[in-house]
Amino acid sequence: MSSLRPAKAGLRTKLFQVIFESDSRLAKGFDVVLILMILASVAVVMLDSVEGYRGAFGTLFYEAEWVFTLLFTLELAARLYCLERPLKYLTSFYGVVDLLSILPTWLALLLPWGQSLLVVRLLRVLRIFRVLRLMQFVGEGRLLIDALKRSWHQILLFLFAVLMIVIIFSSVVYLIEPPEAGFTNIPTAVYWGVVTLTTVGYGDITPVTPLGQFLSMVVMLVGYSIIAVPTGVFSAEVIRSLREQRYSNEACPGCGLDHHDHDARYCRRCGTWLDEETEDPRLSAREDTDT
Amino acid sequence: MSSLRPAKAGLRTKLFQVIFESDSRLAKGFDVVLILMILASVAVVMLDSVEGYRGAFGTLFYEAEWVFTLLFTLELAARLYCLERPLKYLTSFYGVVDLLSILPTWLALLLPWGQSLLVVRLLRVLRIFRVLRLMQFVGEGRLLIDALKRSWHQILLFLFAVLMIVIIFSSVVYLIEPPEAGFTNIPTAVYWGVVTLTTVGYGDITPVTPLGQFLSMVVMLVGYSIIAVPTGVFSAEVIRSLREQRYSNEACPGCGLDHHDHDARYCRRCGTWLDEETEDPRLSAREDTDT
Amino acid sequence: MSSLRPAKAGLRTKLFQVIFESDSRLAKGFDVVLILMILASVAVVMLDSVEGYRGAFGTLFYEAEWVFTLLFTLELAARLYCLERPLKYLTSFYGVVDLLSILPTWLALLLPWGQSLLVVRLLRVLRIFRVLRLMQFVGEGRLLIDALKRSWHQILLFLFAVLMIVIIFSSVVYLIEPPEAGFTNIPTAVYWGVVTLTTVGYGDITPVTPLGQFLSMVVMLVGYSIIAVPTGVFSAEVIRSLREQRYSNEACPGCGLDHHDHDARYCRRCGTWLDEETEDPRLSAREDTDT
Amino acid sequence: MSSLRPAKAGLRTKLFQVIFESDSRLAKGFDVVLILMILASVAVVMLDSVEGYRGAFGTLFYEAEWVFTLLFTLELAARLYCLERPLKYLTSFYGVVDLLSILPTWLALLLPWGQSLLVVRLLRVLRIFRVLRLMQFVGEGRLLIDALKRSWHQILLFLFAVLMIVIIFSSVVYLIEPPEAGFTNIPTAVYWGVVTLTTVGYGDITPVTPLGQFLSMVVMLVGYSIIAVPTGVFSAEVIRSLREQRYSNEACPGCGLDHHDHDARYCRRCGTWLDEETEDPRLSAREDTDT
Repeated sequence: MSSLRPAKAGLRTKLFQVIFESDSRLAKGFDVVLILMILASVAVVMLDSVEGYRGAFGTLFYEAEWVFTLLFTLELAARLYCLERPLKYLTSFYGVVDLLSILPTWLALLLPWGQSLLVVRLLRVLRIFRVLRLMQFVGEGRLLIDALKRSWHQILLFLFAVLMIVIIFSSVVYLIEPPEAGFTNIPTAVYWGVVTLTTVGYGDITPVTPLGQFLSMVVMLVGYSIIAVPTGVFSAEVIRSLREQRYSNEACPGCGLDHHDHDARYCRRCGTWLDEETEDPRLSAREDTDT
Repeated sequence: MSSLRPAKAGLRTKLFQVIFESDSRLAKGFDVVLILMILASVAVVMLDSVEGYRGAFGTLFYEAEWVFTLLFTLELAARLYCLERPLKYLTSFYGVVDLLSILPTWLALLLPWGQSLLVVRLLRVLRIFRVLRLMQFVGEGRLLIDALKRSWHQILLFLFAVLMIVIIFSSVVYLIEPPEAGFTNIPTAVYWGVVTLTTVGYGDITPVTPLGQFLSMVVMLVGYSIIAVPTGVFSAEVIRSLREQRYSNEACPGCGLDHHDHDARYCRRCGTWLDEETEDPRLSAREDTDT
Repeated sequence: MSSLRPAKAGLRTKLFQVIFESDSRLAKGFDVVLILMILASVAVVMLDSVEGYRGAFGTLFYEAEWVFTLLFTLELAARLYCLERPLKYLTSFYGVVDLLSILPTWLALLLPWGQSLLVVRLLRVLRIFRVLRLMQFVGEGRLLIDALKRSWHQILLFLFAVLMIVIIFSSVVYLIEPPEAGFTNIPTAVYWGVVTLTTVGYGDITPVTPLGQFLSMVVMLVGYSIIAVPTGVFSAEVIRSLREQRYSNEACPGCGLDHHDHDARYCRRCGTWLDEETEDPRLSAREDTDT
Repeated sequence: MSSLRPAKAGLRTKLFQVIFESDSRLAKGFDVVLILMILASVAVVMLDSVEGYRGAFGTLFYEAEWVFTLLFTLELAARLYCLERPLKYLTSFYGVVDLLSILPTWLALLLPWGQSLLVVRLLRVLRIFRVLRLMQFVGEGRLLIDALKRSWHQILLFLFAVLMIVIIFSSVVYLIEPPEAGFTNIPTAVYWGVVTLTTVGYGDITPVTPLGQFLSMVVMLVGYSIIAVPTGVFSAEVIRSLREQRYSNEACPGCGLDHHDHDARYCRRCGTWLDEETEDPRLSAREDTDT
């Protein structure tokens, strides 16, 4: 959120530090309270969907929901108040998630009585998306995210290849197996293929003919083997990330290049002696010959 | 496709660049349109197999299929036209796949009326194999394919060993379990063994005796542990591929140290200029000051 | 257990060496007997819960249980006797586990006749927790535990992210799927989500609508791909642990090169004697020839 | 099999080279024929267990089995004939497997008529163990076997820990779940625990109470995360094996130590200059100062 600049006034600066930064003790406390509130409100939404609990504690859930909504609304107002360009925040990813965490409850209020059950149900479940607010805290795992970013492209190509394998095998099994076994059409067969290749194996659709079972075994063994691909790519990237942490942080005094190996004595780009505290042995050698 | 040489004529050269290469904007656009068309036509084949959709949109699917087939035929004709040795392409892997993506539809037309349902169904499903045309685009993931090529042999030996383990355990469980549990013959028991060892676990056949359940647990734990083998082999190969990409193969002419970064110009140990064909800029700089 | 100091008396010191250390043959024998006894007593508890065996061998199990309890009690008494600060041990993790392995049996004796079945059953099963006593022997795998400790934080963040993904997807599938398919409330949907994403795939709850099946496929492919994350992080840490074990931390006094093998005595780059506290044997050899 | 020494006679030496070695073309041909025969005979045993095929091709299977048995017997005789100490081979692992691949068929002949069905069935299935003969060919994957040998100890400790986790969780779920859900005794609960933790997920026993489902989710997530452990350990060992292949094979001319890094110029144990074709720069440096 480096692009957001705090407003100048004292209170607003203070608020900005507490809400958006996490250096001071107050700011850390704010983060902890926020995380707990998000978790609690998500728990309420989840329990509220269980008929038994809803019957027993319905009113309590309703009241808790309003308390959370009011607090989240207040927090969003504070966030917008202490920023110089509040609209920019509102249209950012985190701003949209903030809105999403309070809108459904407010909308339910605005809707006329006797609203269709579907809309009510939808609004109720939508509240659970406030769990996404936790994402900014998960984002701390820089190592994971760096490795994910770098292996993203390879893993996507891999998933693409997986889908091709699944479509081919599923179509053949669809041809072989009778519809009574559950392979009624190709999309369902592809569903079975993904269930099998990813080794989930629900067992709601299973092959019954010997040839179908043989092909299933091939799909299983392929799935069991190629899981090595995303794992291998990602492992390699994590190892690379870890290693780069271990590169020396000092830049070349000559040309400014960094990421030198720890045992490097000369800059690999401009040949400058890296250790500023001692003298380059080439210099002394030359002086020797000069004299 | 380096072995394919374009025909000389201007239009043919132009066509060759658009269809077979991907440097120009037009060629890239052609690739994108082709990918989208393949995906769309595969989607039509898949939806066409769902009875509900077929009843409602059957005619639309039929027409779309013909549009795709005509376009793919046109494209194949263009491909063959712009090559000097079209037959060589037709007998290559990609040529066969190109043919496979249009033949079923044309064959269905040629077949006499009242054809057996099986053949019709077969031809219909065969059209889905045009998804294989996407393979040339997946092939870009050179890193994955290099690593696969090098770990291929080890992973095959691994699958061979897996099958031995499965056959031995399955035979013993077949002896122990009553046929009512589903273990009616050894091939079925092997099917159960693969389902279990690969951790798919459909649950269509499960052991019911205590001893059978105990042996199942052993198979599960073996499967859970040895998945480490293909993963480990492949990870090691990806890491090797990544490392080799990063280091140049040339050694320092001064001290012989190798494994320099690709952008290295000076040896990181003795500071010698690495590129033997040009002169060290430091030398010329010194000469300047000397004069 | 370095914080525990043995009592001074001869017998107590002897006991301490046998029970808490594992250098002498007697101490190793004690460890083996203890492991076997723990395994045997856990087996008895497990078999005792099978109705058939309980009917046939109930009395035998009862007697064996008392033999084990008395031996474990004696052992705990010996442990406390030979320590200077027995209370400190009793309140440590291993002390609590020791208590847990004998308390249920003694408590069952103290309880008045006609105790509720639930309490009796609870006490019976609690005895199985003595399997935790084996933990001190598993703890030997220092490599694994070191790597676990260092990757712990990243794997927790990963599980956190997994739960967020599961909650979001499960809620959407809960909205789409009819309650008859088993998606009766959000907690149950989350249960389904975890079953699917971890590729367990019981199949007790499965989607029945095409859209629900499509979303399931997405969840499966996500689960199949992101298993790479904990694996990659942990692999990287194990590799780091192995490497650190293999290299000494001391640098060459001659040229500063580090990462020498543990058995290295001369720098592999400049041939300098690495151990600064003793003299290079080559020097003394030359002096011999000089004189 | 380096401990086996061939007999001296010409024919016997020739036979030894063909059967036990694999350098000549004849020996390689022998290996291929042997592998195909083993696979074919295993296939016959498997198909023979399918009632349908047995009815149709029973006599053919019977005859094929005798052909295979006679050939395998002949081969074993040849093996024993060309060795100096045949008994030593017969009592080795491969000798026992060779015997196992022919004994069941011969035993079935010796048994009196009207033998109990169980014994007949046992002998029939035992023949499938001849698949173990393939193991000597799988053994070629030296890389895998080296890595397995070195990670064996860690993976065993891991499985030990897994079993502890399973027993603890299973006992608690056994306490919580009603027997109607299938958790009738602790061994069955442990079976469920292994099915769940290894992500097999048959679904033959599944929790039905909310608390039981919650604990299941914990077990699934643990299983999903700790699969990283064997994978990480094994990956690290494969990477180490690959790296060691890359160590220089030349030994130190001074003390004979090998496994030097490729960039090593001095022996890390005795400080001797490793490159025998050039002169040690230390020597020339000293000569300079001497003069």
